[in-house]
Amino acid sequence: MKQPIFLDNAATTRTDREVIEAMSPWLDENYGSPATLYTLGAQSKQAIEEARQQVGDLIGADSKDVYFTSGATESNNWAIKGVADAREEQGRHIITSVAEHHSILMPCKFLEKKGWEVTWLPVDGEGVVDPGSVASVIRDDTVLVTLAHANHEIGTIQPVADIARITRERGVAFHVNAAQGVGHVPLDVQELGCDLLSLSAHKFYGPKGAGALYARRGTRITPLIHGGAQEKKRRAGTQNVAGIVGLGKAAELARRNLEAEAKRLTGLRDYLMESIEGKFEDIRLNGHRTNRLPNNVNYSIEGIEGESIMLSLSYPTADDARPVYISTGSACVSGTLEPSHILLALGVPAELAHGSVRVTMSRETNREDIDYLVKALYEVTERLRSMSPVYKRGSKKCATGSAEGCDCEAAS
Amino acid sequence: MKQPIFLDNAATTRTDREVIEAMSPWLDENYGSPATLYTLGAQSKQAIEEARQQVGDLIGADSKDVYFTSGATESNNWAIKGVADAREEQGRHIITSVAEHHSILMPCKFLEKKGWEVTWLPVDGEGVVDPGSVASVIRDDTVLVTLAHANHEIGTIQPVADIARITRERGVAFHVNAAQGVGHVPLDVQELGCDLLSLSAHKFYGPKGAGALYARRGTRITPLIHGGAQEKKRRAGTQNVAGIVGLGKAAELARRNLEAEAKRLTGLRDYLMESIEGKFEDIRLNGHRTNRLPNNVNYSIEGIEGESIMLSLSYPTADDARPVYISTGSACVSGTLEPSHILLALGVPAELAHGSVRVTMSRETNREDIDYLVKALYEVTERLRSMSPVYKRGSKKCATGSAEGCDCEAAS
Repeated sequence: MKQPIFLDNAATTRTDREVIEAMSPWLDENYGSPATLYTLGAQSKQAIEEARQQVGDLIGADSKDVYFTSGATESNNWAIKGVADAREEQGRHIITSVAEHHSILMPCKFLEKKGWEVTWLPVDGEGVVDPGSVASVIRDDTVLVTLAHANHEIGTIQPVADIARITRERGVAFHVNAAQGVGHVPLDVQELGCDLLSLSAHKFYGPKGAGALYARRGTRITPLIHGGAQEKKRRAGTQNVAGIVGLGKAAELARRNLEAEAKRLTGLRDYLMESIEGKFEDIRLNGHRTNRLPNNVNYSIEGIEGESIMLSLSYPTADDARPVYISTGSACVSGTLEPSHILLALGVPAELAHGSVRVTMSRETNREDIDYLVKALYEVTERLRSMSPVYKRGSKKCATGSAEGCDCEAAS
Repeated sequence: MKQPIFLDNAATTRTDREVIEAMSPWLDENYGSPATLYTLGAQSKQAIEEARQQVGDLIGADSKDVYFTSGATESNNWAIKGVADAREEQGRHIITSVAEHHSILMPCKFLEKKGWEVTWLPVDGEGVVDPGSVASVIRDDTVLVTLAHANHEIGTIQPVADIARITRERGVAFHVNAAQGVGHVPLDVQELGCDLLSLSAHKFYGPKGAGALYARRGTRITPLIHGGAQEKKRRAGTQNVAGIVGLGKAAELARRNLEAEAKRLTGLRDYLMESIEGKFEDIRLNGHRTNRLPNNVNYSIEGIEGESIMLSLSYPTADDARPVYISTGSACVSGTLEPSHILLALGVPAELAHGSVRVTMSRETNREDIDYLVKALYEVTERLRSMSPVYKRGSKKCATGSAEGCDCEAAS
């Protein structure tokens, strides 16, 4: 098999060589439990505290406010259920949006079943939550607002700081799921003004199985995982020392190259969008054109299934072809035939939502990869469309998906 | 520093070389998310399913009933809170014992605060829960019994199968925290008859950050971590592939040598007990003399602090001395000055509980290590006792700690 091109970095990323090297002794010789006082344990504890500092530095947080978890899904569950539990007597109302990740959506639905009220804010056609809408639905019994910093499917970045000014004024805890943004764009909890923030190592070249929840001092939150005294009694269980060291190292590495890499990827992203829009007919950009993650591109391609595109790119038939790995819908629900709830939330019609592809780049991605993708994607699209019983060329010519609208539809 | 002797294997174990090698590609080249359908993801999924089979084989479970978690603490929290939530309408009564691990104790206390009733069963002087006592406290509104298979401090093994017969007859879910036993003693969920069982990789030569919950088909349990469709929608979050592969490999290796190694360690344990009891005065064996984990020994040493013993052994002053790592009380609460709640539950007086040491061996442990430990422990004990303002030689001569009692105390 020819070397694949991996363009599904919102799902996971290749662990950095330096991260693996940093982890290695903690998988091996340095196996002491950080809860113990002898040398072998004390050095594990010290390694964890260094990682805490590295993570704190990456997000502008006091490291004392960083708690290690098994990943962003756990962090999101903890933030939502933990604040709900701790503030239950103040009220049982939570605010989120209809376009969140399943690890936000499902804990909120769980709480709904338990009698909490959840307000599901709409997003606009580009996936943005209006801060004014947050202000208008906060009530006296609202205890938490939880929103993504950047959407995992369409890459749209939310006006977090604007929303934080509102929640702070109203005394409502504000949790930000920043799993997609941390390590990829500059992100500072002081500037954002949020009270809680989730992150995951494997989304920025760290290992799977390690993440963190930032919880600003004074934020009332009940543990999700009770037990021993680890993580200042807030998250029990022997820490995953190697994973945490890997997370710390990934944070350090990300911080070192953050702005330059974000700039490079933004250039590559815009080049990809230009290439696609110059070549394809009947497509729709999903998400905001500029206010989106530097590595994210998402299009709906009319008349065909995203799943078919993804599989055709992954398993090319030509001997000399390189597999290209992208995703369709959300990686977590791949394999289901439900259209993405996020695209539906943008107002994308179900049949078009089915034909969506997400391309998410990494620091390994270069211009040649993008050229290869565009060519392969075009060939696959042409082939699938030629077999499609539903596709009619020119039914939608506007490639911009812009909220401002355009007049090209009339020209078809 | 001379090569240390690690005798704190109930806290954690050295990861096996073969386990590290098995994990290595999954930290590195094979980084695909198991939720994705292309080759890179599909192979991660396949690796996880192999590990699930390996874990199932170790504990006699259908692999479909094995769910991966971040460790036994998460598994314990999930079992307790998950069953409590799923069966809430049937009743809000839980049964456990006073001598459980903090990851059982704290979730139970959490539920108590939420209005659940918890019956805290006593243990006898050797740490055993009487099955009859379980039968006598089960009520119509009891939904869960949760007990350790083997105590993490004193190694006492519970009559799990006897208790399971009772819970099954009464329609009560039975959760067993088997973190200490899995991989060390033969343990089969069909023979035990439990409905749920927790285990942790790093307790048997696997990596930290990976564990599992066995949940027999039909056991009603709400997820602790909601979100994506991973683990059949029961435990969300991108799986820690490398950790899970490591857990699977550790399970496979443990199974290969289980009985021979358990026998060898039992011999070594009995040799250690004979050596200590032949040499020391005024000590008390904690836990059952024979019905205990093959690798666990626990003594209270009168007149001195376990913490001082542990630190003296860990940081010896003589240049040619080897550090010996053991624990005092429970590793999870080391650093606190509270006497172990487990020793208190046995009826050990607080001052004696303070002077307890736990020695837990591994497959690396040999007779020379034991001889070295006994010599070093004796020297430290003599030195600390000579400085102790409270120790009076011969105040308690009985070394057996036997529940049957003896008449040697009168002889002092």
